[in-house]
Amino acid sequence: MDKKTIGILGGGQLGRMVVEAANRLNINTVILDAPNSPAKQINAVSDHVDGSFTHYESIVKLAEKSDVLTIEIEHIDVDALKRVQQKFPHVSIYPLPETIKLIQDKYLQKEHLISHEVAVTESLPVLENTEEALLKIGEAFDYPFMLKSRTLAYDGRGNFVVKSAEYIKDALEFLKDRPLYAEKWCPFVKELAVMVVRSLEGEVFAYPTVETVHQDNICHLVYAPARIPDTLAKKASILANNAVKSFPGCGIFGVEMFLLPNNELLINEIAPRPHNSGHYTIDACVTSQFEAHVRAVAGLPMPKGFTEFSTTSTNAIMLNVLGDKEVANKELEICRRALEIPHGTVYLYGKATRPDRKMGHINIVSSSMEDCENRLSYILGESTEIPASLIPKEKPLVGIIMGSDSDLPVMSVGANILKTFGVPFELTIVSAHRTPHRMSQYAIDAPKRGLKVVIAGAGGAAHLPGMVAAMTPLPVIGVPVKGSTLDGVDSLHSIVQMPRGIPVATVAINNSTNAALLAIRILGAYDPRWLNEMNQYMTNMEEEVLGKAEVLEDIGYEKYLTDKLKK
Amino acid sequence: MDKKTIGILGGGQLGRMVVEAANRLNINTVILDAPNSPAKQINAVSDHVDGSFTHYESIVKLAEKSDVLTIEIEHIDVDALKRVQQKFPHVSIYPLPETIKLIQDKYLQKEHLISHEVAVTESLPVLENTEEALLKIGEAFDYPFMLKSRTLAYDGRGNFVVKSAEYIKDALEFLKDRPLYAEKWCPFVKELAVMVVRSLEGEVFAYPTVETVHQDNICHLVYAPARIPDTLAKKASILANNAVKSFPGCGIFGVEMFLLPNNELLINEIAPRPHNSGHYTIDACVTSQFEAHVRAVAGLPMPKGFTEFSTTSTNAIMLNVLGDKEVANKELEICRRALEIPHGTVYLYGKATRPDRKMGHINIVSSSMEDCENRLSYILGESTEIPASLIPKEKPLVGIIMGSDSDLPVMSVGANILKTFGVPFELTIVSAHRTPHRMSQYAIDAPKRGLKVVIAGAGGAAHLPGMVAAMTPLPVIGVPVKGSTLDGVDSLHSIVQMPRGIPVATVAINNSTNAALLAIRILGAYDPRWLNEMNQYMTNMEEEVLGKAEVLEDIGYEKYLTDKLKK
Repeated sequence: MDKKTIGILGGGQLGRMVVEAANRLNINTVILDAPNSPAKQINAVSDHVDGSFTHYESIVKLAEKSDVLTIEIEHIDVDALKRVQQKFPHVSIYPLPETIKLIQDKYLQKEHLISHEVAVTESLPVLENTEEALLKIGEAFDYPFMLKSRTLAYDGRGNFVVKSAEYIKDALEFLKDRPLYAEKWCPFVKELAVMVVRSLEGEVFAYPTVETVHQDNICHLVYAPARIPDTLAKKASILANNAVKSFPGCGIFGVEMFLLPNNELLINEIAPRPHNSGHYTIDACVTSQFEAHVRAVAGLPMPKGFTEFSTTSTNAIMLNVLGDKEVANKELEICRRALEIPHGTVYLYGKATRPDRKMGHINIVSSSMEDCENRLSYILGESTEIPASLIPKEKPLVGIIMGSDSDLPVMSVGANILKTFGVPFELTIVSAHRTPHRMSQYAIDAPKRGLKVVIAGAGGAAHLPGMVAAMTPLPVIGVPVKGSTLDGVDSLHSIVQMPRGIPVATVAINNSTNAALLAIRILGAYDPRWLNEMNQYMTNMEEEVLGKAEVLEDIGYEKYLTDKLKK
Repeated sequence: MDKKTIGILGGGQLGRMVVEAANRLNINTVILDAPNSPAKQINAVSDHVDGSFTHYESIVKLAEKSDVLTIEIEHIDVDALKRVQQKFPHVSIYPLPETIKLIQDKYLQKEHLISHEVAVTESLPVLENTEEALLKIGEAFDYPFMLKSRTLAYDGRGNFVVKSAEYIKDALEFLKDRPLYAEKWCPFVKELAVMVVRSLEGEVFAYPTVETVHQDNICHLVYAPARIPDTLAKKASILANNAVKSFPGCGIFGVEMFLLPNNELLINEIAPRPHNSGHYTIDACVTSQFEAHVRAVAGLPMPKGFTEFSTTSTNAIMLNVLGDKEVANKELEICRRALEIPHGTVYLYGKATRPDRKMGHINIVSSSMEDCENRLSYILGESTEIPASLIPKEKPLVGIIMGSDSDLPVMSVGANILKTFGVPFELTIVSAHRTPHRMSQYAIDAPKRGLKVVIAGAGGAAHLPGMVAAMTPLPVIGVPVKGSTLDGVDSLHSIVQMPRGIPVATVAINNSTNAALLAIRILGAYDPRWLNEMNQYMTNMEEEVLGKAEVLEDIGYEKYLTDKLKK
């Protein structure tokens, strides 16, 4: 795709996945790291550099082979990198060394973001590592507060929670000799993250806002999209974009933030490279974070929208696979279970196992988050059998409910239609007047259970369709059932004349056939399978009537009528 | 994932993509092919074997390093492979050498399939390569017929169309010294293909049925799913499964077939390996054909459903990137355009360019086939600007139509709701009685244009919603508009009382608000974005009413009423 060679400082799993993306584009990469590191394993074309990404001579060797230098880890020797920059002015370096420098020091990073009006957690520098200085911070911030190393901290290493003044001694002991700063305690309700890729022209493209769940300070799970309202997700995305706009240069950035109880968002920290919270993009998004990074640093096109989910109904969970704490390679059991169920994709990094080491990750992608969660619980060994619900086709898509079994003769006709089409459905009795609590629960749970449409039949005062519609965001189809008086007009008007705000899709009196067909059309709006089935049904219907017309024209209307009466 | 090492005979692009899948699972691979072949380029861990996959000594060298042997090309030396099998009884070979032998000879392949009651194109052996023998075949088959080499034929090489008896001489000249057979002319309407993976236990899993489009006998495009009715696709899938069941052993198979005008399906040929028609699976399916093959031959789990599309609304087109016929590397322009638009993923194989050589492929994945086709036409350079429709969000999802501009005051209220929610929509006049042809066209084109729901408003005899519903498989929402007489009950009954077979989702008289909200619920059934928005809307509505209740309780009903009257 491009003649440029990309030199990568660091050859761990992030570098490995960058190399995989570059391989697909015929873009050459050279890795600087220990021999046989994960990234080197999957590129046999280059003569890689064995050495350390903190070592000037090694970086020089890498630069000699490269047109562009980039990193997969920010803990490199920036001064060495700057010297290399002067020595090889024709070699581009992304992210810029200044950006890496700023980000390496978490306190400088925060000051930089504040100066660009980006909201961050409140912090104070620790000018001297003394009890006195920390007591002052305790006065300013109150307890607990976080004491953090300004540099070389990751996965929670380098952090200490100062619960009260009594803990200051321990904190200093734990973090002694490191440059420190203090953060005000941040009682977040969720941790969010957004991957943002920045083109050389300064355009930024945000991936969806995701939710990260940590265990022992290490990323355990990522939910994509984050389970928060859309408006908040958008806000997070804007915040992340603004943060990344403040760093010149180009490439991918991982932006981690806290969501506070009042819906405020504060940036926690930024990584100027591919990030663990973006691994889900390999399977869930149009273009992965790794390819996005390659494209950015190689100056390839960055199209609008390529950071979105690959289809509108995509949900994903990413699970980190850590080396088992006790038994070497036991973590592979998790991977094996992921292979046993559909929708789990396993990525292993070619690393020797070690307790808590990031050995790989698993992406689970499905059309509903609940389905992802079911699969996750199987993978984690929490449920031992593959639940039937894992086969999406068997999950009901349509729920048929009616106020009383006396409506069944009418409603069963619609059920038969769904059966003929092969649409998975469920059918039960839910009465607005006699089982109001059951009705609420049914309406509220419907979307979570994977239902896409509810068909509700009712007669007389006919409250069921409207009440269910009032409590679920799904489309509700109402079937007016004809009672012993008023010819069904009572039910029709009760169902169709809903107030503004709560729609019920009303069909003709007693016509549950049409309710079922409408449900299939609704499924077909997004799922071509049902759209095709509906097309076929309509064609058959047309052919049937045309057939009758032919017979009628052929034998004449009198004979047709007598034949018909005989039947 | 597994301690087994997989030895691959052949290191072209198919081997390369198998290696990529194996890398992700930490499964080691060793390649037998020329130095620096595409597959070798992305595995730096192994000491590969330089040599030919038709050379016994080289295969022995490969077997020495392997626990399992597999192939990425069927034109290997089977006898050599059988000798290797005897020498290394602990090494498994998949596909089985007997299977490769059968498949190498296209005529034996056909006889084998017939003996397993699998439908194939009618064929006759050419016992002697003489004009006489071919004339006899001309008598049996009539002209034109296909003369084909039984062995070593691919991408149309080794085929000759015998248009009439006069062509027999040329045919013999063209295919001289090759073992031949003849195939009856097959006037197919489409070429289909199905990838099938077979587990060692003999279970088969079919990927979706796709449609292949050839240019100059080389695969040009693959449409996934095939643009055929669902029932036919299912039939193709069963045929492919039955064919693959007839071969013991395990691994992935590509099954190519012809669709005849009478909807009959005949198998053309089978490849016992990953196949060009299955490249779309990398982006569109839960698990790619390459990973499926790795799992099968390594004895890893083969879960049910893993061959399905990754979400229900997935459509894909695969485009082969061939070396430009005239200018070296000009084909990269196609790749570059693919990077410019979202949803195109480029795969290059690390090969030196040569006219018509398979250099790479591009997968385009979207929620509609029409959208895939738009993107394809940009990639191919047929359209020079990125059409606005490429950004899915800007494409209308809802169409609002009304019989007359006199309905606009009522219908515009619904349009405002869609605007508030940010749902892309279109609004126009379509009259059932005054523009019946426009109405038909609108109804027929609606799904192709990406509309998911149609809202139709009409008054009086109110035919528009029902007529549109009769001509589109999409859900149609009807809004009865109140006229000067009968209070709108005329319109309500005209719209809601549709006959069995054609549903219209009817809302209250004049209530286009509810029509718009119902449309959003229908979108939300599959797209969580709109489901969330609807939830938010309902919560806001609840809060608004609770707020009013608080004021009412606070100030008393008399003051509340006088305040309200003042407004």
